[in-house]
Amino acid sequence: MEIPAPETLKTPLVVPNKLLMGAGPANLSPRVLHAMSHGVLGHMNAETFQIMDEIKEGIKYVFQTKNELSLVISASGHTGMEAVLCNLLEPGDRVLIAVNGLWGLRAADMAERYGAVPIKMSTVAGDNFSFTEIEQNLKKHRPKLLFIVQGETSTGVHQPIEGLGDLCHKYNCLLGVDTVAAVGGVPFFMDKWGVDAVYAGVQKAIGAPPGLTIVSFSPKAQKVIFGRNTPIKVYYWDMKVLGQQWNCYNNVRPYHHTTSSSLLCSLRESLSIIAEEGLTEWQRKHDECYQRLRKGIENLGLEFFVKDENKRLKTVTSIVVTDFDWKKLVNYAMNKYNVEIAGGLGPTAGKILRIGIMGYNANPQTIDFFLKVLKESLEHARRNDSKL
Amino acid sequence: MEIPAPETLKTPLVVPNKLLMGAGPANLSPRVLHAMSHGVLGHMNAETFQIMDEIKEGIKYVFQTKNELSLVISASGHTGMEAVLCNLLEPGDRVLIAVNGLWGLRAADMAERYGAVPIKMSTVAGDNFSFTEIEQNLKKHRPKLLFIVQGETSTGVHQPIEGLGDLCHKYNCLLGVDTVAAVGGVPFFMDKWGVDAVYAGVQKAIGAPPGLTIVSFSPKAQKVIFGRNTPIKVYYWDMKVLGQQWNCYNNVRPYHHTTSSSLLCSLRESLSIIAEEGLTEWQRKHDECYQRLRKGIENLGLEFFVKDENKRLKTVTSIVVTDFDWKKLVNYAMNKYNVEIAGGLGPTAGKILRIGIMGYNANPQTIDFFLKVLKESLEHARRNDSKL
Repeated sequence: MEIPAPETLKTPLVVPNKLLMGAGPANLSPRVLHAMSHGVLGHMNAETFQIMDEIKEGIKYVFQTKNELSLVISASGHTGMEAVLCNLLEPGDRVLIAVNGLWGLRAADMAERYGAVPIKMSTVAGDNFSFTEIEQNLKKHRPKLLFIVQGETSTGVHQPIEGLGDLCHKYNCLLGVDTVAAVGGVPFFMDKWGVDAVYAGVQKAIGAPPGLTIVSFSPKAQKVIFGRNTPIKVYYWDMKVLGQQWNCYNNVRPYHHTTSSSLLCSLRESLSIIAEEGLTEWQRKHDECYQRLRKGIENLGLEFFVKDENKRLKTVTSIVVTDFDWKKLVNYAMNKYNVEIAGGLGPTAGKILRIGIMGYNANPQTIDFFLKVLKESLEHARRNDSKL
Repeated sequence: MEIPAPETLKTPLVVPNKLLMGAGPANLSPRVLHAMSHGVLGHMNAETFQIMDEIKEGIKYVFQTKNELSLVISASGHTGMEAVLCNLLEPGDRVLIAVNGLWGLRAADMAERYGAVPIKMSTVAGDNFSFTEIEQNLKKHRPKLLFIVQGETSTGVHQPIEGLGDLCHKYNCLLGVDTVAAVGGVPFFMDKWGVDAVYAGVQKAIGAPPGLTIVSFSPKAQKVIFGRNTPIKVYYWDMKVLGQQWNCYNNVRPYHHTTSSSLLCSLRESLSIIAEEGLTEWQRKHDECYQRLRKGIENLGLEFFVKDENKRLKTVTSIVVTDFDWKKLVNYAMNKYNVEIAGGLGPTAGKILRIGIMGYNANPQTIDFFLKVLKESLEHARRNDSKL
């Protein structure tokens, strides 16, 4: 062989145990972790199809929808964003994008790549959008789709969605929602709220490992997809074909791509845990932990980035970087305790810290331990003489 | 909750142990399986970056290349195909596609979605392409890219690649190769053979679980990507940004998407096993098992779909469906022994059986056991009175 075997691969794999308290992924329940240790299944095996069917029911449950076009994309949460835009938009279509952090910017970038016309509706980082300003923009621009983020992880802002479907439909506009970091942790009712397209990463409040995205399209959105004039640009998330593999159209299941049974098994297990505990209880636990974290943060004298408590995302709490060195704080927690705290992202880089409460980590013991680590790290990051 | 928790998710997850002898995925080594059982790492953790760096070295080793733009796409092998076409082609670009099975057809479909002009060069299923006919097509059509499949799993055909790079470059054409089901099991030398873009699923002869694709681009291909006039249509596999997360351009590692540490750990482990055993030995084992399987098939009086032994793909052996009911055979092996044998795919559906020798399954004991199951299943499928 001209290229020799790399020496670095001849050393053992070392994976430390971390407590992931950033904006996701979160830690996994032992049950979910164990589900990955089963042998691999073929993508056309009957058992795989059954697991896929069960996952579909779980997706409908967590999104609170009866949509038949509910399925998994075998890739990270970002592909949910691309899939929604790519399936619903054709070249020249106007899409209204609510930008109050990184995700809106990303969505605008993606929409433009597909030849659509993104119209950005912006507000300051740390704020959300009123229905009044959304309606003004719908009226003015008459977009085909409104894209909005329920849980803006780059700022820690929660966007109310209830009632937005009716508003969009009044202007013949579809409603697409990113609930990557929100669903499971906060209420989300796809059908009741009139959401036409939604997606979420599963590594946040759903409690599964990263690598899969759950998506769902309303019958109205499905009609738009099947009535397109131009082909869907990407084969991998073309809902016309991927929906067949996921048996969304009551037909045979032709081969589309090789699914990852290891990831599917663990997603099935995390959805199973939510089904057993109940979504209401699952959300209550997230809320309880948020309240505990909030009190702890107030006791430490830290400042919330989102001033209005009603606008705070309970799964990701953002803290203003004030009289401490944020890098020192983050590094101390990681180096001494293997605890991950996230810095800002995109527009908030260097300005905030982000603390996630998601899935298996949503329990009081974890929050109490985390608060101790945060306190010690903060003290360290305030001392001028300390090393990084 | 309006949509109640699905009862089906309240039953335990059951995953049987199967012997996957179809066209992939294959079974995993216990070491690779164990690597997935570690706790999840954050996508920006130092340990994750180290694992990614080690994987990069492993990719260079298995592809036998020094290309800096060597990385993983967090999705199935199909995205390797889309990524190569999407990054290298712009609207109106001509791409010559060698079609001798399903994959060429898929590639043509994808290229068309991106606005490129696919020119199909076809031969019958079961055959490969001579350099003479390739050169005629290069001369006639002057394409920007030749897309060709080294291991056509839908037919079990092997395509020689050595020398093809020089031929393509003579006509100022890039060479893109699908080696999804071949690399690891048969020789592949990216740099020596002048390949400009390559990808492979990792769930075949690389021995990792499905869910990731490894890709590599030559400096010439990289120049084409960075010299484009139009944006790369898909953000998720835009090599300009994904390459940064994978540290391919010697710069910082900005966040692109959330990688799946569980899958990365197991890919790292499978590449580690190949590095320890050596690629030559890894390929020798595949070859030895192919020879064993070939003799067994001859002893059973079965007919090879690929008549010319030199054109046979050693990782996927295809058998003509003759005096037996293929569905009966496949179902018997699955129901009685949990052994997966694949039927045909696309143009070969219903006409052939496909038997894979890949990764951990490439050992003589497994082949001997498999041949016993095949013999019994065949006898069953020849009896007219037997039930499915």
